[in-house]
Amino acid sequence: MSELQKYLDKLNTLNFKDMYNGHFFLTWEKTDDEIAAVFTVADALRCLREQNISTKIFDSGLGISLFRDNSTRTRFSFASACNLLGLEVQDLDEGKSQIAHGETVRETANMISFMADVIGIRDDMYIGKGNKYMHDVVNAVTEGNADGVLEQKPTLVNLQCDIDHPTQCMADMLHVIHTFGGVEQLKGKKVAMTWAYSPSYGKPLSVPQGVIGLFTRFGMDVVLAHPEGYDVMPEVEEVAKKNAAKTGGSFSKTNSMAEAFKDADVVYPKSWAPFAAMEKRTDLYGKGDMDGIGALEKELLAQNAGHKDWCCTEELMKTTKDGKALYLHCLPADINDVSCKDGEVAASVFDRYRVPLYKQASFKPYIIAAMIFLAKQKDPVKTLKALEERGVLRHVL
Amino acid sequence: MSELQKYLDKLNTLNFKDMYNGHFFLTWEKTDDEIAAVFTVADALRCLREQNISTKIFDSGLGISLFRDNSTRTRFSFASACNLLGLEVQDLDEGKSQIAHGETVRETANMISFMADVIGIRDDMYIGKGNKYMHDVVNAVTEGNADGVLEQKPTLVNLQCDIDHPTQCMADMLHVIHTFGGVEQLKGKKVAMTWAYSPSYGKPLSVPQGVIGLFTRFGMDVVLAHPEGYDVMPEVEEVAKKNAAKTGGSFSKTNSMAEAFKDADVVYPKSWAPFAAMEKRTDLYGKGDMDGIGALEKELLAQNAGHKDWCCTEELMKTTKDGKALYLHCLPADINDVSCKDGEVAASVFDRYRVPLYKQASFKPYIIAAMIFLAKQKDPVKTLKALEERGVLRHVL
Amino acid sequence: MSELQKYLDKLNTLNFKDMYNGHFFLTWEKTDDEIAAVFTVADALRCLREQNISTKIFDSGLGISLFRDNSTRTRFSFASACNLLGLEVQDLDEGKSQIAHGETVRETANMISFMADVIGIRDDMYIGKGNKYMHDVVNAVTEGNADGVLEQKPTLVNLQCDIDHPTQCMADMLHVIHTFGGVEQLKGKKVAMTWAYSPSYGKPLSVPQGVIGLFTRFGMDVVLAHPEGYDVMPEVEEVAKKNAAKTGGSFSKTNSMAEAFKDADVVYPKSWAPFAAMEKRTDLYGKGDMDGIGALEKELLAQNAGHKDWCCTEELMKTTKDGKALYLHCLPADINDVSCKDGEVAASVFDRYRVPLYKQASFKPYIIAAMIFLAKQKDPVKTLKALEERGVLRHVL
Repeated sequence: MSELQKYLDKLNTLNFKDMYNGHFFLTWEKTDDEIAAVFTVADALRCLREQNISTKIFDSGLGISLFRDNSTRTRFSFASACNLLGLEVQDLDEGKSQIAHGETVRETANMISFMADVIGIRDDMYIGKGNKYMHDVVNAVTEGNADGVLEQKPTLVNLQCDIDHPTQCMADMLHVIHTFGGVEQLKGKKVAMTWAYSPSYGKPLSVPQGVIGLFTRFGMDVVLAHPEGYDVMPEVEEVAKKNAAKTGGSFSKTNSMAEAFKDADVVYPKSWAPFAAMEKRTDLYGKGDMDGIGALEKELLAQNAGHKDWCCTEELMKTTKDGKALYLHCLPADINDVSCKDGEVAASVFDRYRVPLYKQASFKPYIIAAMIFLAKQKDPVKTLKALEERGVLRHVL
Repeated sequence: MSELQKYLDKLNTLNFKDMYNGHFFLTWEKTDDEIAAVFTVADALRCLREQNISTKIFDSGLGISLFRDNSTRTRFSFASACNLLGLEVQDLDEGKSQIAHGETVRETANMISFMADVIGIRDDMYIGKGNKYMHDVVNAVTEGNADGVLEQKPTLVNLQCDIDHPTQCMADMLHVIHTFGGVEQLKGKKVAMTWAYSPSYGKPLSVPQGVIGLFTRFGMDVVLAHPEGYDVMPEVEEVAKKNAAKTGGSFSKTNSMAEAFKDADVVYPKSWAPFAAMEKRTDLYGKGDMDGIGALEKELLAQNAGHKDWCCTEELMKTTKDGKALYLHCLPADINDVSCKDGEVAASVFDRYRVPLYKQASFKPYIIAAMIFLAKQKDPVKTLKALEERGVLRHVL
Repeated sequence: MSELQKYLDKLNTLNFKDMYNGHFFLTWEKTDDEIAAVFTVADALRCLREQNISTKIFDSGLGISLFRDNSTRTRFSFASACNLLGLEVQDLDEGKSQIAHGETVRETANMISFMADVIGIRDDMYIGKGNKYMHDVVNAVTEGNADGVLEQKPTLVNLQCDIDHPTQCMADMLHVIHTFGGVEQLKGKKVAMTWAYSPSYGKPLSVPQGVIGLFTRFGMDVVLAHPEGYDVMPEVEEVAKKNAAKTGGSFSKTNSMAEAFKDADVVYPKSWAPFAAMEKRTDLYGKGDMDGIGALEKELLAQNAGHKDWCCTEELMKTTKDGKALYLHCLPADINDVSCKDGEVAASVFDRYRVPLYKQASFKPYIIAAMIFLAKQKDPVKTLKALEERGVLRHVL
C-alpha cells in the first residue's frame, strides 16, 4: 500500500463536499470533517512532494495575493502553495486610499480576477474591516462569475484578518498533531495561549483568537492568559466556550501567566494589542484623527511596559508538563537580548525550540495548498490518486 | 462541428500573414483583415479557455512588462494574457531618469530580452514620447536578434502610448461587436465619444484617439464631442476622417454633449486633457520647468471646472437611441457622489451598466493574448486546431 | 552527430561530481574541471534553446532572488535562468534593518525556502559582509534540510558579493573563449583589467577581483592597472598570482593605463572604489556614522577627479594588439558625453563594440542556469541527453 493511501482512506471517512467551490474565511465556519480534510490533504500533498511527485492541478492560471500589511512568511507560503498547484502568483499592491468605498472593491475584485483561480488576502489591521473586505471581494467575484464576466470563480483564502488567522493556526495545529502522534492523542492536553510582552505596539489579535477558536475543538484544555485589559473579541471567546463544551475539553481565562503555564503540554506566548484599544484605533483611523492615534499609541506602549514580566522564561518552562511543553510561535518572535532587550521569550528557550518552530512554519504552504485544493477539486480523493498514478516528477533527477 | 471551427473558418477568409513576427503599435497601421484577425483569435482563445482547454503555446519564456504610469487593470490583463500562453511575467520598474538618452534604451531593451517573447509597454504621459520609445525598443531588439544577441525577437504590445490605446479600444470594440450581434450589425450605428468632467487633471488622450481611430472603420457614425479647447491630436482626426470615408460611415465633431448623445447607439463619456496643454506640459517637462507645470495644472483645473455640466446623466441617456445606448468606459470612472462629488457619470447610470462594463474589460486579456498569438504563430489556424486536438486541460477537474 | 554531442563529449572528460548538491560562491573555490563544466553546460543549454528544445528540469519550484543592491541586468538574467529550467522567481525585498543579527538570517533563510530550489543573492556593498551573509544563508538552509524543515536544499548562486562576481566574470570569460575560438587559444594573450574614471562613487570591487581571480587560470598575461591607492583586496591578488604560476601565465600590476593597454588582446576598463576606502566605509556604516560616510564620499570624489585621464580612448585602443583588442564591460558603462561628461570610455569606442558587449552580457543567463543545473542534476550529461531526446518544444511553432 502506498504511503498516500492512508490519507485517502482517512478522506473517505469525511464529508467535505461543501468545500468544493467554496472559500476559507474562519475555521469555526467549517465542520470538524472539513477541518480534518484540510489537515489530511495537506499531509497528502506533502507526502507526494516528498516523493518528488508533481501536484500541479493547473496547467496555467493565476493566484492573486493582496497584502494590506507587510509580510514575508505568509507571502512566501502563499507563493509556494500556488506554485505547488501550478498557479503563477501576481501581487496586487493596492494603495489604502483606493479601497475607500464599496464600488471600487467590487470593481477591483473583478478586474484582477480574469484568470484568477485563487485570491489570498491579508487585511488584519482594523477591527470590523478585514473579514468584511474579504466577503466583499468574494461577493463581487461570485457575481462576476454568474454574470459571465469571469470564466471561473476564484476561491478566497484568508491569509489573516481582524478575526482569525486560519492558515497560521491550522499550520500550528497540524504541527501539534504530528508532535503528539495524532489527533486522537490531544484529548485532555493543556494548551496555554498567553499574552507576552513585546516592545512593539498593536500586534493583531488574529493569532490568539484563531488559536482559541480552533484548539478548543480537539478536547483540549485551553487557557487564555493575559494581563487585565488585554481581552480578545468576546464573540471569539464564545466560540471557544461552545467548542469546548461540545468536545469535552475546556476553555478558561486567567490573568496569570504562571497559572496558564502550570502543567501545560503546549504553550503559545505571544504579544497582542487589547481589543478595546484596537477598536478605538479603528474609530480614530476612520475619523482621520492621526493625533489621537499617536496619543493612543503612547498610552498603549506605557500600558505594555507595565507587563515586562510576561515573558516565556526557563523558569516558567520548568513548570510545564515534565518541563517540556511544546513551545509555539507564529514567528518572528521578540527574543530577549536578541531582537530586543525585553521580549516575549528567553533566548535559551527559543533556541531549544528552533527546529520545531521552523517545522511548525513549514506546514503553512501545505495548509494553504490544501484549502485551495479542496475548493477547486470536485473529487479530491480521485485527484490525489490520479496525481500519484500520473507520477510526473517535480524535479527530473 | 466544434464551436472553435467558426472562428477558424473566419480566419481562413482573412489575410494576416504580415502579423507574424510583427508588433502592435497603432490600430490604424493594421489592415481591416488584421484587425478582424485579432478579434477572431481573441474569441477563439476565450472559446478554448471556456472549454477548459489549455492554450499554452510556450513551455517557458518571459513576458516583460514596462509600465511608466501606474496601472492595475492593464497590468493584470497583460499578466493574464502571458499566463494564458505559457509565459511568466517579469516587471521592469524603470526609473524615469534612466531613459534620458537613446543609448540606454537600446541597451536596456537588449538586457531585459534574453528570454523575452513579449514586451508590453505603457508610456502615455508625454506627447511625442511614448510611441517613439516603443519604436526605439523594437528597433533595439530587432538589431539584437539580427546580431545574435537574442535568440528570439520579442514582440511589442503597445499597452497605451501618447497616440493610441489599442488593447483597450479593441477590447471596447469586441464588446460592442458582441453586444450588437456581430460586426455586420454596426453599419450606421451612432457612436458618441465625448469628453466628460473629472476633478482630476491630465488624463491621457489615447482612449478618445484610439476610439475615433478604430470605431470609424466599421461604417459607424462617430461623433467626437468636447468643450472648446479640448481637441485631440489633429493627425488622429485625419485618420478618423479617412476611415469614415472608406467605410461609408462618418466622423464629425461638436462642442455639445447633448448633440452627440442624441440618438446615439453607443456612448463613451470620458475625461481627457486638451492636446495643446499636454504638448505644453511635455515641453515644460523637457525643460525641467516644474513651476511652469504647477501653473499649467492650476490653469487646467480651473478650465475643467467650467465644464462640470459635461456629465453622463440619466437625462442625457434618455435622449439616446430608445434611451438605451450602450455605455462604455475604460474604468475606473469618476462617478458622481461615489468617487467624487462631480464626475463623468451619474451613479445610477454607472450602476445600470456595471455588468456590461465589466464584460467590456474582460475582453482585454484575450485581445492582448491574440496580438501575441498572431505575432508568434506562423500558422495561427493550425495552432488553434492543434490546441483543441491536444486537449490538455487547463484545470484538472 | 547532434550539435549537443560535442558538449557531452567534453563533459565526459571532466570531473565535476562535487558540484552536485553544492553552491557557487567564488570561482577560485572551484577546480579547473568544474569551471570548464559550467562553461560547457552553459553552451549546451544555449544550444538546446537555439534549437527550440525545452530545458525545463523542474515541473514546479521557486527561485528566490534577494537583491541588496539595485539591479536590472542581473535580476533579469537570474529570472531568465530560472525560467529556462522551470522555476518561478519570487523576489525578497528585505529591509536592511531586518538582517542585523544572525538569528534572523537563519530564520528568514528557512522561511523563504519551503519550495525553493535556488537562492540567488546580490550583496556587494560592504567589505566582509556579502560573502559571509551568503554562507550564513547556506548554513541555515543546509540545517533546515537536515532537520526535515525543508524537503529540498536550495542551491546558492552568488549574484555578486564583496569579493567576487562569478556569474558576471564567467559570462565575460565565455565571451572571450567564443571570440578567440576556444579556451586553448587563450595562452599568452594579454588582458588589461584597468581602473577607469567615473563621476560616480563607490562602485564594487567584485568585477576587477573576479576578473583577475578567473582570467589568470587560462595561461593569460593579466595586468591589473589602477591609479595609486585604488588597490583591490590583497587576498584576491594572491589568488591571481598563484593561478598564474600554475598555468604558465602571469599576473602583474601597474599604475599606468597606457602600459596595461600596450599590445593587449583584451581590455576591461572599469571604475571601482579603493579597497581601503570601502573598508573604512564599512566601519563607518557599522558605527552608524553617516557624517563620516558623507565626508568620505566627498574625499573619494575629489580623489577620483584627479584621474579623469583614465579613460578608454581611441588613442589608447590603437596601442592594443593590431589596434583591435576585445573591449569588455559589465554594463552599464559611463560613456563620455553620453551618460556623463567624462567617463570610462570614449563614445566611438563603446559604439564600435556594442554588439560584442551585448553578446558578452547574453551569456549570463546561461552561466547562471549552468550553475544551477550542475548543482541540481546528479548526472548532467545524462539529463542533457534526455532533454534532447525528450524534444519538448519550447515554443510551439
